[in-house]
Amino acid sequence: MQLPVLHIEYPAWVASHVDWDRPYRTDEDRMRLAIEMSRQNVVTGTGGPFGAAIFERASGKLVSVGMNSVVRYNNSTLHGEMMAFMMAQARLGSFTLRAKDGPEHELFTSCDPCAMCLGATLWSGVTRAVCGADREDAFRLHFEEGPVFPESLQYLRKRGIEIVAGFLREEANAVLELYRQNKGVIYNG
Amino acid sequence: MQLPVLHIEYPAWVASHVDWDRPYRTDEDRMRLAIEMSRQNVVTGTGGPFGAAIFERASGKLVSVGMNSVVRYNNSTLHGEMMAFMMAQARLGSFTLRAKDGPEHELFTSCDPCAMCLGATLWSGVTRAVCGADREDAFRLHFEEGPVFPESLQYLRKRGIEIVAGFLREEANAVLELYRQNKGVIYNG
Repeated sequence: MQLPVLHIEYPAWVASHVDWDRPYRTDEDRMRLAIEMSRQNVVTGTGGPFGAAIFERASGKLVSVGMNSVVRYNNSTLHGEMMAFMMAQARLGSFTLRAKDGPEHELFTSCDPCAMCLGATLWSGVTRAVCGADREDAFRLHFEEGPVFPESLQYLRKRGIEIVAGFLREEANAVLELYRQNKGVIYNG
Repeated sequence: MQLPVLHIEYPAWVASHVDWDRPYRTDEDRMRLAIEMSRQNVVTGTGGPFGAAIFERASGKLVSVGMNSVVRYNNSTLHGEMMAFMMAQARLGSFTLRAKDGPEHELFTSCDPCAMCLGATLWSGVTRAVCGADREDAFRLHFEEGPVFPESLQYLRKRGIEIVAGFLREEANAVLELYRQNKGVIYNG
């Protein structure tokens, strides 16, 4: 049998829509990039309305972006956060973003992570996760978040991960609404 | 900036250790293949002691295998189950294994899925998950499973996914013990 091989890269618009050199100094700067990834994904038709980005916490250096790529790659695991984790680790050549003597990293995501992405957040090594739209916003589009409970977030917090919810929620949610108006595919309906 | 590109394939031993043509008729046949993936991964040194496989439920046709590939690819998301889901969907050219008019699929995994993989199980479209070793077995090696609660399993069951735990647990756990004796890397310690 011909064994399958995965080849995963960013959609072409990333080259022209992401500034890798500027520092993203504030939480607003960082979240707006995550939201912009979600918006471009919708506008360009490359995936669901979910974007993410990973930064060095102290410097604001951008390490990776992510965007939902489930339909583009026929791959149900490729949520925006997963793309961001995989790309960040590929770029750094490390399976953890919490390397000894290395800088701390943080995730910005345009919507609350689903159960899969919340688990992946724990394994990724980020020490902070900032979320925009919430699970009810996603659910209004019939996107489901899976088994995430208050204890799930508490579990991550006990492992030293700071979690911030509802940050720039309205801006993030506007992209979900845009996707709904465009009648985008609901792949986990 | 040079954008990262992911290239993910099976370790070389899969070509000689997996029979894609025979039917795997019983649960024992199917679980033993998942366990064999975990064992080969340890023996060959290609990753952590976790293996998985996905089958058509009715026919026993093998659709994909998976093996932990976190260290091999510097990618914290590449647990055995994730590899199995991604490869199955790549092979079928579909982001769901629960296509209308298509056969139902099931996951066999050599150890209880972590929080990430449990979420991924929900999105994958499998309708059954059979697990070997349990989270306490993994924890004895200092592998953590993350925020998985009884309600998490219940959530999946309510979505129509049958979950079987502790199936051929001793055989599965023997590979965890082998990994411990070999002093394998504990990447999420």
